[in-house]
Amino acid sequence: MWSEVLVLATLTVGLSMGGFPYITPSTGNVWPKPQMTETQETYMVIRPEKFKFSVVGHDCDILQEAINRYKRTMFSGPTSPTLNPVWRKDEKFNGFLDEVSLNLMAECEEYPHQYMDEQYQIKIDSSDAPGNGTIISQSIWGILRGLESFSQLLLPAGSDFNVNSTQVMDFPRFAHRGFMLDTSRHYLPIKKIKDHLELMAMNKFNIFHWHVVDDQSFPYVSERFPQLSELGSFTPIHQYSAQNISDIVEFARLRGIRVLPEFDTPGHTRSWGPGQPELLTSCYKDGKPDGTYGPIDPTLDGNYDFLTSLFEEITERFHDHYVHLGGDEVSFSCWESNPNITAYMEAHNITGDYAKLEEIYISKLLDIIANLPNKNGYLVWQEVFDNGVKIAADTIVHVWKSEHIPIGWKEELEKVTEAGYRTVLSSCWYLNYISYGDDWYKYYECDPQEFNGTDTQKQLILGGEACMWGEYVDGTNLIPRTWPRAAVVAEKLWSSSAHTNDTNAAAPRLEEHRCRLLDRGYQVQPFGPSYCLSDVDV
Amino acid sequence: MWSEVLVLATLTVGLSMGGFPYITPSTGNVWPKPQMTETQETYMVIRPEKFKFSVVGHDCDILQEAINRYKRTMFSGPTSPTLNPVWRKDEKFNGFLDEVSLNLMAECEEYPHQYMDEQYQIKIDSSDAPGNGTIISQSIWGILRGLESFSQLLLPAGSDFNVNSTQVMDFPRFAHRGFMLDTSRHYLPIKKIKDHLELMAMNKFNIFHWHVVDDQSFPYVSERFPQLSELGSFTPIHQYSAQNISDIVEFARLRGIRVLPEFDTPGHTRSWGPGQPELLTSCYKDGKPDGTYGPIDPTLDGNYDFLTSLFEEITERFHDHYVHLGGDEVSFSCWESNPNITAYMEAHNITGDYAKLEEIYISKLLDIIANLPNKNGYLVWQEVFDNGVKIAADTIVHVWKSEHIPIGWKEELEKVTEAGYRTVLSSCWYLNYISYGDDWYKYYECDPQEFNGTDTQKQLILGGEACMWGEYVDGTNLIPRTWPRAAVVAEKLWSSSAHTNDTNAAAPRLEEHRCRLLDRGYQVQPFGPSYCLSDVDV
Repeated sequence: MWSEVLVLATLTVGLSMGGFPYITPSTGNVWPKPQMTETQETYMVIRPEKFKFSVVGHDCDILQEAINRYKRTMFSGPTSPTLNPVWRKDEKFNGFLDEVSLNLMAECEEYPHQYMDEQYQIKIDSSDAPGNGTIISQSIWGILRGLESFSQLLLPAGSDFNVNSTQVMDFPRFAHRGFMLDTSRHYLPIKKIKDHLELMAMNKFNIFHWHVVDDQSFPYVSERFPQLSELGSFTPIHQYSAQNISDIVEFARLRGIRVLPEFDTPGHTRSWGPGQPELLTSCYKDGKPDGTYGPIDPTLDGNYDFLTSLFEEITERFHDHYVHLGGDEVSFSCWESNPNITAYMEAHNITGDYAKLEEIYISKLLDIIANLPNKNGYLVWQEVFDNGVKIAADTIVHVWKSEHIPIGWKEELEKVTEAGYRTVLSSCWYLNYISYGDDWYKYYECDPQEFNGTDTQKQLILGGEACMWGEYVDGTNLIPRTWPRAAVVAEKLWSSSAHTNDTNAAAPRLEEHRCRLLDRGYQVQPFGPSYCLSDVDV
Repeated sequence: MWSEVLVLATLTVGLSMGGFPYITPSTGNVWPKPQMTETQETYMVIRPEKFKFSVVGHDCDILQEAINRYKRTMFSGPTSPTLNPVWRKDEKFNGFLDEVSLNLMAECEEYPHQYMDEQYQIKIDSSDAPGNGTIISQSIWGILRGLESFSQLLLPAGSDFNVNSTQVMDFPRFAHRGFMLDTSRHYLPIKKIKDHLELMAMNKFNIFHWHVVDDQSFPYVSERFPQLSELGSFTPIHQYSAQNISDIVEFARLRGIRVLPEFDTPGHTRSWGPGQPELLTSCYKDGKPDGTYGPIDPTLDGNYDFLTSLFEEITERFHDHYVHLGGDEVSFSCWESNPNITAYMEAHNITGDYAKLEEIYISKLLDIIANLPNKNGYLVWQEVFDNGVKIAADTIVHVWKSEHIPIGWKEELEKVTEAGYRTVLSSCWYLNYISYGDDWYKYYECDPQEFNGTDTQKQLILGGEACMWGEYVDGTNLIPRTWPRAAVVAEKLWSSSAHTNDTNAAAPRLEEHRCRLLDRGYQVQPFGPSYCLSDVDV
């Protein structure tokens, strides 16, 4: 029953414990793998009760909150008097590390953003400063990433922790490292979204793409249009209030995570209908409305006024410069049935050209977003590009299709970047598509820059996003189903391609990381046969 | 993204909430469906603070524990002043039900067993006893099943609960309704095993088949052979002590669940090796031992002494009359390499016939079990039968293969029952084989008596078992991955085949049941897009 594991990870199956077939975790490796790490065999000892971080550069609330957080996280691993009992007695012991200084060399920024600098260095007992520990960055976001890496260097040793003499120099490969959650097919409790954000931060993801609403429910409580959620959410308790949203945006901000809201139109809007009469196209059958509804009616001026006002509210609340406008899977059949739509198209000389009608809608929507007070930017799903809709030059195209409809993702990236658009890849990373056995290597073997294109084209790849669509996922299974599979995507997006092209080399590091996340209290499911010290308490 | 759901459950997708596509749950249905239910529109009201069960027949600890348990479980649904606010005001209100009598008509049995009687009746406000409530059974096990059904009849109404005037007459279709967990590929925490047992009881499963040990680890702590777990478990904390086991057996007993231990031999025993030298066959390469080990060495008398002593301990500890002896997937290659085995086979005139060697081993093991102080019975996996091993007439053959190796499960059942053996089916119900989308209808469409055979052959089908092998499952994902998918199997094994042949009819009832289990505090994952009132708190 364990043959799948062996096929994948023959090199990493240990025979240490009497020949039992399971993966042996590595020790002391940082996930995602830093760009450069130098480790010596010498080590220092951290005593939890004596340890502190000292701020030697700029300071701010984000930094102080992070210090408090990491003083908990760092010491969450299982401790045991019998673990590594030799410390302090051997010649590799280089003393106690009671303080690590945090050297933030520029003022804090308030919100994470698309151009944020996440580079950092860690020096523990380095040759130029023996006995000392420092995390250095030009940016608060780099300090956050450095704190996470530092916390992963600690190894339990009795009731204390060892840390090897180490230098880390690190920065992300891609600026856009996102994770998409869907709160429409099922409602996700705030607490689970926060757990997910915490795990994202531990894996250096920096964008929470929130697919808030869809056909099935409209949990977003709008101040300007309260009827949308009153009539469109599952129940009054299945909603996200303004307070809930600012709470989540703040939680993410403190962890260097942008919140990118998606309000997908003109399709996927069934739940919008009851709260906003006239918004959706009324579908006709045998010459009269049949009581069902299609995409947003693009022919009514009032609908654009509504969208202007709604997106003004949304972009204020979520704070990020970007908003995701969706645009996927627009079905034309309802538009085709509706005589008012037909008349409008005749009047505009586009009879029969529904892609053109979609373009009219999308163009107006893009104009609305670009003319909001903050001149916001936007992402759209790939269909908007595929359908030939004329889109603005600064649009970010989100590639998601995995089948060859119309073409494979590599060809799609080629086309999108050839047209000069920036792009983000999700096709390989639909984590909702579960299957029996190990699937992580598939996620690991996908590289967003592996397509035919010039260097200029490759530079238009901003990164990628893992997606967890919500048809079969709610608060009960979100965390174990998503993690640690999402960690695999995180490493592909952060680490050098040269370090992430070997699943056999990654397997023991991934196994260590899964135990680490479990140690920290998250219900992170296993890959193949294995154990962690903390799996007895889950 | 929700098309799979629609394909499956077109009839049950409600349009009630503005046309959103999701399954609407039924209300007040018992799962698994009882053999006979009569419900009136009249109802009585249960006030939690006034309600009590009264014992009017025999009494025992199992009954008292069950009363305490169900007084909690019954009232665990979400209450709200706005739910069903009309009660007491309408003509259907038949008064308050402050007491339900439990009429156990025979003395309690101490342990559940293969022939236990699980039949029961419920009468709530029936024509022969208006205003009263009774649960009647000839057996404590029937009272337990009746309490579960009764608890599922309650509908939240404000801070009280409504129950319709109802009569239920119920009994199981199959006597063997099992669920197998594997604690070798991953250790499962005691608490999760208990949660699973609680959910089993809520679904009227009656056998916990515990695949305790396997190649990967030996968590069972033997008093007689303590080295088995000392050297064969993952770590000293990944073990089940004698106390743990009696705790689980007791927890199961109180819920009418038998604990059927499996100690699989002669293959799947790698973890037994370190703690019991000489037990496993030493594999040879180029004329000398290569350091690896194969199945149990069937040629050494000492190994049978060991097995006698170990199984004596096991059958005492687990209390059930039956033990599962495994016998699956025995690889002959190591036996073929070993010169001592070759010599033994020559001496016994079976040179080259490794199936015969396996038969010698199995026959001796069956004799050992049959001659234990309690003359225990046993199950074996189908290979023992398939390989032509001569087995005793009272062996129960466990059919598990889903592919046509050597034949499909229907043909296998035909052969096994033609040979006169009793049998249990698992082939359709390997819940560890996950896939994207809804898979429950596959489990629902499998019927263990749908094969070519005489009535006599069909009566040899004792029932079935759902299996959750542990390669990718530990405490983090056991409950959401298993439930409510296992509930589907539970209904197939308990309810009439006439009531369980329509997935469209089952879908809304299953949806109600999933919300019920969630209400009771278990992390039970969703089928398609849906919501439950308690999913905001998971």
